[in-house]
Amino acid sequence: MTVHRITPVPVTSIPRHPDRAAESHKGDYGRVLILAGSRGMAGAAALSGLGALRGGAGLVTVACPETVADVVTGIEPGLMTRPLPTTGGHLIDHRDGHWLADLDDLKPDVWAVGPGLGRSEAAQRAVQELWESCEEPAVFDADALNALADQGGDWADPPADAARVLTPHPGEFMRLLIGSDMQPEEDFEWTPENRESLATMFAREHNVVLLLKGSRTLVTDGERLFENRTGNPGMASGGCGDVLTGLIAALIGQGMEPFEAACCGAHLHGRAGDLAAAELSQPGMIASDLPRFLATAFADPGYD
Amino acid sequence: MTVHRITPVPVTSIPRHPDRAAESHKGDYGRVLILAGSRGMAGAAALSGLGALRGGAGLVTVACPETVADVVTGIEPGLMTRPLPTTGGHLIDHRDGHWLADLDDLKPDVWAVGPGLGRSEAAQRAVQELWESCEEPAVFDADALNALADQGGDWADPPADAARVLTPHPGEFMRLLIGSDMQPEEDFEWTPENRESLATMFAREHNVVLLLKGSRTLVTDGERLFENRTGNPGMASGGCGDVLTGLIAALIGQGMEPFEAACCGAHLHGRAGDLAAAELSQPGMIASDLPRFLATAFADPGYD
Amino acid sequence: MTVHRITPVPVTSIPRHPDRAAESHKGDYGRVLILAGSRGMAGAAALSGLGALRGGAGLVTVACPETVADVVTGIEPGLMTRPLPTTGGHLIDHRDGHWLADLDDLKPDVWAVGPGLGRSEAAQRAVQELWESCEEPAVFDADALNALADQGGDWADPPADAARVLTPHPGEFMRLLIGSDMQPEEDFEWTPENRESLATMFAREHNVVLLLKGSRTLVTDGERLFENRTGNPGMASGGCGDVLTGLIAALIGQGMEPFEAACCGAHLHGRAGDLAAAELSQPGMIASDLPRFLATAFADPGYD
Amino acid sequence: MTVHRITPVPVTSIPRHPDRAAESHKGDYGRVLILAGSRGMAGAAALSGLGALRGGAGLVTVACPETVADVVTGIEPGLMTRPLPTTGGHLIDHRDGHWLADLDDLKPDVWAVGPGLGRSEAAQRAVQELWESCEEPAVFDADALNALADQGGDWADPPADAARVLTPHPGEFMRLLIGSDMQPEEDFEWTPENRESLATMFAREHNVVLLLKGSRTLVTDGERLFENRTGNPGMASGGCGDVLTGLIAALIGQGMEPFEAACCGAHLHGRAGDLAAAELSQPGMIASDLPRFLATAFADPGYD
Repeated sequence: MTVHRITPVPVTSIPRHPDRAAESHKGDYGRVLILAGSRGMAGAAALSGLGALRGGAGLVTVACPETVADVVTGIEPGLMTRPLPTTGGHLIDHRDGHWLADLDDLKPDVWAVGPGLGRSEAAQRAVQELWESCEEPAVFDADALNALADQGGDWADPPADAARVLTPHPGEFMRLLIGSDMQPEEDFEWTPENRESLATMFAREHNVVLLLKGSRTLVTDGERLFENRTGNPGMASGGCGDVLTGLIAALIGQGMEPFEAACCGAHLHGRAGDLAAAELSQPGMIASDLPRFLATAFADPGYD
Repeated sequence: MTVHRITPVPVTSIPRHPDRAAESHKGDYGRVLILAGSRGMAGAAALSGLGALRGGAGLVTVACPETVADVVTGIEPGLMTRPLPTTGGHLIDHRDGHWLADLDDLKPDVWAVGPGLGRSEAAQRAVQELWESCEEPAVFDADALNALADQGGDWADPPADAARVLTPHPGEFMRLLIGSDMQPEEDFEWTPENRESLATMFAREHNVVLLLKGSRTLVTDGERLFENRTGNPGMASGGCGDVLTGLIAALIGQGMEPFEAACCGAHLHGRAGDLAAAELSQPGMIASDLPRFLATAFADPGYD
Repeated sequence: MTVHRITPVPVTSIPRHPDRAAESHKGDYGRVLILAGSRGMAGAAALSGLGALRGGAGLVTVACPETVADVVTGIEPGLMTRPLPTTGGHLIDHRDGHWLADLDDLKPDVWAVGPGLGRSEAAQRAVQELWESCEEPAVFDADALNALADQGGDWADPPADAARVLTPHPGEFMRLLIGSDMQPEEDFEWTPENRESLATMFAREHNVVLLLKGSRTLVTDGERLFENRTGNPGMASGGCGDVLTGLIAALIGQGMEPFEAACCGAHLHGRAGDLAAAELSQPGMIASDLPRFLATAFADPGYD
Repeated sequence: MTVHRITPVPVTSIPRHPDRAAESHKGDYGRVLILAGSRGMAGAAALSGLGALRGGAGLVTVACPETVADVVTGIEPGLMTRPLPTTGGHLIDHRDGHWLADLDDLKPDVWAVGPGLGRSEAAQRAVQELWESCEEPAVFDADALNALADQGGDWADPPADAARVLTPHPGEFMRLLIGSDMQPEEDFEWTPENRESLATMFAREHNVVLLLKGSRTLVTDGERLFENRTGNPGMASGGCGDVLTGLIAALIGQGMEPFEAACCGAHLHGRAGDLAAAELSQPGMIASDLPRFLATAFADPGYD
C-alpha cells in the first residue's frame, strides 16, 4: 500500500477536560482497568495507574501478574489490583484464555493495555482478545502495540463503536505500519509532512485514534489532526509514556470523546512535564514526578 | 416498613476535636484496631490506617491478611499490623472462627472494620461477630456494610452501650435498608427530604450512628442530624472513604462521643479534601493525599 | 529496697551534637547496628533506622527477621539490613544462640536494641547476651527493656566501660524497678520528686544512663540529672520513641559521651516534634514525620 | 613498584553536562545497566538506579538478585529491573557464568557495577568478565573494586576503547594499589601530593579514569587531573557514593567523554549534597535526599 497525502482538518483549540459536578460520585468519573506489568517491569504498571488516578479517574484497578501486584500497591495505595496467574513472573492464560470473561466483574468503563506487559504468548493473546472483543474504549500502548503489530496484517475489526486509541512512538508506529501491511514506499522519507500523512492514513484505515509521540506529538482520528505544543526533552526518560497511557484512559472514563481525550491528555502530560522541568530541570526530572505535576497542570492547564 | 417523616434536631455547630493535654501519653489517645484489606485491596487497609494515624490516634494496628501486612507497613511504618491467616489472599477463620478472642490481646479502644475487606465467608463471619459481640465502639464501612446487609433482616443487638457507626454511600445504604427489611415504599423518591428521613429513621431503629455519604454528607443518631458542608467532587476517587473510616475511629479513640466523632470526622475529612483540591486540583487530588492534608486541616480546621 | 532521696547534679546546659570536620569520612560518624523488628512490627525497626540515619550516623544496619528486612529497605534505601533466621516471623537463635559472634562482622560502634523486637525466647536471649557481653555502648528500648525486666533481679554486670542507655516510658520503668528488685515501698507516690529520685537511684545502682520518658523527659546517669524541655503531646503516637532510640545511638556513634548523647537526643527529638507540630498540628503529626524534622532540628537546634 | 611523582595537566574548568536537544528521544540519553545489590544491600542498588535516573539517563535497568528486584521497583517505579538467579539472596552464575551473554538483550550503552553487590564468587566472576570483555564503558565501584583488587596483580586489558571508570574511596584505592602490585614504598606517606601522584600513576598504568573520593575528590585519566570543590561532610553517610556511581554512568550515557563525565558527576553530586545540607543540615541529610537535590543541582549547577 503506497502513501497518499491526505489533508486532515487541523484542530487548533485544545480540547478541555470536563469539570466535576457538585452532585457526583466515583462512578461518574469512570472505572479504569489497566492490564500491564510483568517481571522486571512492575513500575510501568504503577506509573500507568498513577497517571489514571491523578488524571481524575473514579476507580483504577491494575490487572497484573500476582508478583507485581504488591509492588504496585506499595507505590500507590489508591490503586486496586487484580493479581493474575503467572509463571516465572509472566502472564499465563486465564481460564482457557478467556481474559475478558475473567475480568468482567470489574466492570471497566475504559481499558488501558500494554505498559510493561512483556511479550509472552499469553500477553499476546490477551491483547488480541481485547482488541477484537472488548466493547469498551481501550488505549493500546507499548507491548500491546507490539502485540498488535505481530498479529499480521489481517486485523479483525473491533466491536462497532468500541473506540481504540493507539499511542506509539515512531519505532512502534513503524512496526504497526509494517504489521498492518501499510509500510511506506521504499523511498519514503520521514519528513514532517509524511509523518502527518502516514498517521492520518493509518488512523482512517484502521478506524482508530492514533497518538504518534514525538517532540510535537500528533493526534488524529483520520479526519482531524491535532499537533501538541507542550512537553520537553526532559520527558525522554523511562516510564513517562506509561503515565500518558493511564491519563488518556482516565479522561475517556470521565466522558471525553476518545480523540479529544487523546489531545487533552497529550497537552496535560506535556504541561506536567514542563512544570516538572521548571522545578527539577530537564535531566533531573523523571517519570514518577509526572503524576504529581499532573495535578498542578490540571490546576493551571494553560489551554489558551 | 414504610417511610415516616421524622424531624431530628439539627446540629448546626460543628463538634470539635479534643485538645491534647500536656501531661498525656499514647494510651490517652486510643488504640485503634482496623480489620481491613484483602488480596488486591491492600491499599484500602493502609489508607484507613493512615486516616487513623493522622487523625491523632495513639496506636493503630491493622489486622489484615498476612499477604497484605507487609504492603501496609511499607506504605506507613507508624502502622503496626496483625497478619491474619488466609487462603489465596482472603481471610480464613481464626481459631474456629473466634475473631474477637484471637484479637483480644491488642486491647483496642475502638474498631474500624471493612475497607477492602472483601466478601469471603470468613470476612462475613468476622463482621457479624464484631457487630454482635464486640464491646468497644466500632465503625463499619465498605465490605463490612455489605456483610451486615447480607445477614438478613433479623439483626442481633450489639452489647449495650457498644456504639456502632455506619458509613455507607447511597448504594450501600440502599442495601442496608433492604437487608434490614426497611426498604422504602415503591414510590419512594430519593429527594433530599426523604434521604434525611430514611437516614434518621434507620439510625433510630437500629440504634446506630449513621453517616450517609453524599455531596452533603449527613450524620444522624436518630435524634440529631448534622449536614456536612466541607468536601468537593475531587474526593470522588477510590480510597477517599477509607481515610474517613480510620479518622472517625481515631476521634472516638480520643474520647469523642461517637455521633460527634462522626460529625467532626466528616468535617475534617472534607476540609482536608478542600485543602488538597486547592493545591492539587479536583481531578488531580487522590486519596493518599488526604492524610497529609488532614494534618493541615487539624491546624486550620475552619470550624466556624 | 526502699526509695532514698538523692540529689543529683542538675545539668542545665543542653549538650550539643558534634560538628562534622571537613576532612572526615563515614567511619568517623559511627556504624550503628540496630536489633529490632518482628512480624507485624517491621515499622518500628525502620523508624529506629531512620532516626539513626537522620541522626547523622555514618552507616546504619538493621538486623531483623528476614521477613522484615525487605520492608525496612523499601522504606529507606539508605538502611542496610542483616536478615536473621526466623520462624513464623519471629527470631530464632543464631548459631546455637551466639548472637554477638554472628553479628560480629558488622563491626558496630554502637548498638540499639528493642523497637518492635517482640518477646520471643530467642529475642529474650539476644537481649541478655548483648547486655552481658557486648563491649560497645548499647541503647535498650521497648521490648529489650521488657526482656531485661523479665530476667529477674540478679542482673549480671556489663563489660567494664561498656555503656548501657535505657529509655523506658513510665510503665516500662516500673517493670524494670520490679524486675531488678528495686520496687518502691507500697505507699510510694509517683510525684515529680519521687520520679527523679527513683530514676537517679536506678541509674546509680545499675551503672546505666536512664532516659525516663514523660512530658518532661528525664536523663540521669546516677550523678547528673537533665530535664528535657522540648516536645509536645502530638508525639504521643506510635513509633515516636523508636526514632529516639536510633537517634541516641547515632549521637553516641558520632563520639558523644552516652549521658550527653541521651540528653542531646531527647532535646533534638522533642525539637523535631515541635517543628512537626507547628506545620502538621499535634494530632496530625506522626512518627514517620520525625526523621525529616530531625534534619530541620539539627539546622536550628534551639540549644539556648 | 615505587611511586614516581608525575605532573598531570590540571583541569580547572568544570566539564558541563550536555543540553537536551528539542528533537530527541529516550534512546539519545542512553541505556544504563546497573549490576548491583544483594541480600541486605538492596538499597545500594536502588540508590545507584536513582542516581542514574535523576542524572538524566534515558532508560535505567537494575540487574540484581531476584529477591532485591521488587524492593528496587518499590523505591522508584521508573527503574526497570532484571531479576537474576540467586541462592540465599546472593548471585549465582548465569548460564554457565556467561553474564554478558545473558544480559546482552538489554543493549546497554554504559554499565555501572558494584554497589551492594556483595562478595560472592559469582559476583567476583561477573565483575571480572565485565572488566575483560564488556565493550561498553563501565563504572566500577564498591564491591566491584574489591573484586578487581582480589583478582591479583595480573590484570587483563579491557577491550580497546572500552572505557573503565573506577570510583574508590581511599581504603578501596589502597586495596587496588596492592591488588595490582602497585603498593607504595613502605615509607610512603598519604600527603596530598602523594595522593595525587598515586592516583595519576594508577590511572595511567591501568588506562582507566580514576575518581578518588575524599573531602576534595580527585579525578584523573593519567594525563589530566581534576580536583572537585563541591561537597561537604554531611555526605559521609551510607549510600551517598552509590548515587554518584549511577550519575557518572548516566552522564557517559548522554554522550560525555568518561573523564569529563566523572569530573562533572563529582561536581554535581557534591553540589546536590551542598544544597541538601543547606536545607537539611549536615548530620540530617542522607543518601536518599541526593537524587532529588541532584535535580536542583542540574537546574543551578554552579559551574563557574
